[in-house]
Amino acid sequence: MSDKQFAVVGMGNAIVDVISHVDDEFVVANGLERGAMRLIDADEVTRLYAAMPPGIESSGGSAANTIAGIAALGGSVAYIGKVRDDQLGEVFGHDMRASGVHYDVPAAAEGDPTARCLIVVTPDAQRTLNTFLGISRNLSPDDVDAGLVASAELLYCEGYLWDVEIAKAAIRHGMDLAHQAGGKTALALSDSFCVDRHREEFRDLVENRVDILFANELEICSLYEVDTFDEALQQVRGKCEIACLTRSADGSVVVAGDEVHVVDAHPVGHVVDTTGAGDMYASGFLWGLSEGYDLATCGRLGGMAAAEVISHLGARPEASLSELAAPIIATASGR
Amino acid sequence: MSDKQFAVVGMGNAIVDVISHVDDEFVVANGLERGAMRLIDADEVTRLYAAMPPGIESSGGSAANTIAGIAALGGSVAYIGKVRDDQLGEVFGHDMRASGVHYDVPAAAEGDPTARCLIVVTPDAQRTLNTFLGISRNLSPDDVDAGLVASAELLYCEGYLWDVEIAKAAIRHGMDLAHQAGGKTALALSDSFCVDRHREEFRDLVENRVDILFANELEICSLYEVDTFDEALQQVRGKCEIACLTRSADGSVVVAGDEVHVVDAHPVGHVVDTTGAGDMYASGFLWGLSEGYDLATCGRLGGMAAAEVISHLGARPEASLSELAAPIIATASGR
Repeated sequence: MSDKQFAVVGMGNAIVDVISHVDDEFVVANGLERGAMRLIDADEVTRLYAAMPPGIESSGGSAANTIAGIAALGGSVAYIGKVRDDQLGEVFGHDMRASGVHYDVPAAAEGDPTARCLIVVTPDAQRTLNTFLGISRNLSPDDVDAGLVASAELLYCEGYLWDVEIAKAAIRHGMDLAHQAGGKTALALSDSFCVDRHREEFRDLVENRVDILFANELEICSLYEVDTFDEALQQVRGKCEIACLTRSADGSVVVAGDEVHVVDAHPVGHVVDTTGAGDMYASGFLWGLSEGYDLATCGRLGGMAAAEVISHLGARPEASLSELAAPIIATASGR
Repeated sequence: MSDKQFAVVGMGNAIVDVISHVDDEFVVANGLERGAMRLIDADEVTRLYAAMPPGIESSGGSAANTIAGIAALGGSVAYIGKVRDDQLGEVFGHDMRASGVHYDVPAAAEGDPTARCLIVVTPDAQRTLNTFLGISRNLSPDDVDAGLVASAELLYCEGYLWDVEIAKAAIRHGMDLAHQAGGKTALALSDSFCVDRHREEFRDLVENRVDILFANELEICSLYEVDTFDEALQQVRGKCEIACLTRSADGSVVVAGDEVHVVDAHPVGHVVDTTGAGDMYASGFLWGLSEGYDLATCGRLGGMAAAEVISHLGARPEASLSELAAPIIATASGR
């Protein structure tokens, strides 16, 4: 552990989720791509929300979920993302601060409302995301507090940011600041369709700016345009310092130079809602890393946090992740 | 069943709940009255929210919950209550309409924001309510659509409304309209502290305007200032057409003239959050009544709906109440 103030500072779209259970027919009837994230505009958010059943609202945003998860494990974290000074913005800010996250980006006094993601969960527990980015899409290099980034061991960015040009500049700027201050950088690929839209840029980012990469099987196969997981694994090896490749019920594979760890999935009872699984994997992994645990232990911590979040509705942890982590770190070899 | 358009029209405070799990220490440290509802102002809602852990948001409001529950059972229902044209107001309106409730009270373009209830749930699953009434407290006789009330078999009002003078006038006016149109009236006492504040007025209401009364043990004992449930039962008998007295895990007692039914509680697994238990009891009971079932069956339907809502976080049903009702009505004697 370094003497920096924060273990991780996260950067992403600050979003409040609106979550409803739907049947399979709803997904088909509304032309949704099951399991994917798509960006929608103000008209479509109104139309789709009107069609959705009653829901619950819960703070979300991929990197924000990851940061809240690290805080739940006891890590010292901060977050960069934009909300409006409206009710959903108040909810988002409250939930971050109440989770123990340092979050001081001021809520915008004008412009689009706080981002909302309409999430429909089908009976197979799969989630389909429909994101209205609102004010969050205005995240720019000016919002990246150089002092804050320098005060963290690692800057974690979500790939979802990559859909907005000014946010790309914010990521590149933030990652350069992190490296200049002697810190590390991490990126989550976020979504295979997002990777598909920006493949060349993501490859460049992974090779030249990213130290730690998080990707699920679909995303890493899309990045390298290969058909099998093993081909993707061979491709990513050596492109960045550490790659964490998640495979849902098949666990994860952690690749770091010569080291390759195949980590079994954490046991989970009834899967209710897979929203946040990847985000929480990153929470567990990065917290483990910041605490100095070996890579296999970090992978197991990621699997544990993912298993917790898919056992209930919503993308933030409900149970005590610290308590769930205890038996894993008790048997850790490293540190 | 009559030829009226709606089985029930509900009237109450239109509220969005903000729900967090807390430990017992939180209740003590913040000076809260465990299990009760208290009204808080804008300053206190800001202070208490800042102290609360991360939460989820879910549409609430006592009568609104009851009406949504009746809709979930397949009943035809409408609702009267006030929101602002803000994000929480949009959430409330969406959830009502998406539940199948006729709700056309226009969102106010100015004034206080939509009402919020900060709910803290302790490890014993007990909920403590802190309500900021916002714009909902402006509900007045002018908001009571005479045509709508006349088109319903029954007008259902929550006792929580009784804390605001103009809302009292709205209840009295609405109940008179219902009777003039040949309909019935129902009242939930809502909260023993609320009963304590307005005992004489509630007694008058029960004797002179209410046909069906819903009260839990604490509330009915407070209404008649007696120490035992049986004394309260003897007091309320004959004061109104039907009294439904709920006793948590001890089930309910339904009193109607010479009829007295002692109904066992519906089996429930793990109790997570008791918010909405009384509201959902009223849903099951009133739906059964509107469908013409006997009083004991109505009581069992109430217990079933209450059992469903306390098995998860939030005050609205998640499982299919219609499916849960099927085995109960299959063995019903009446109709």
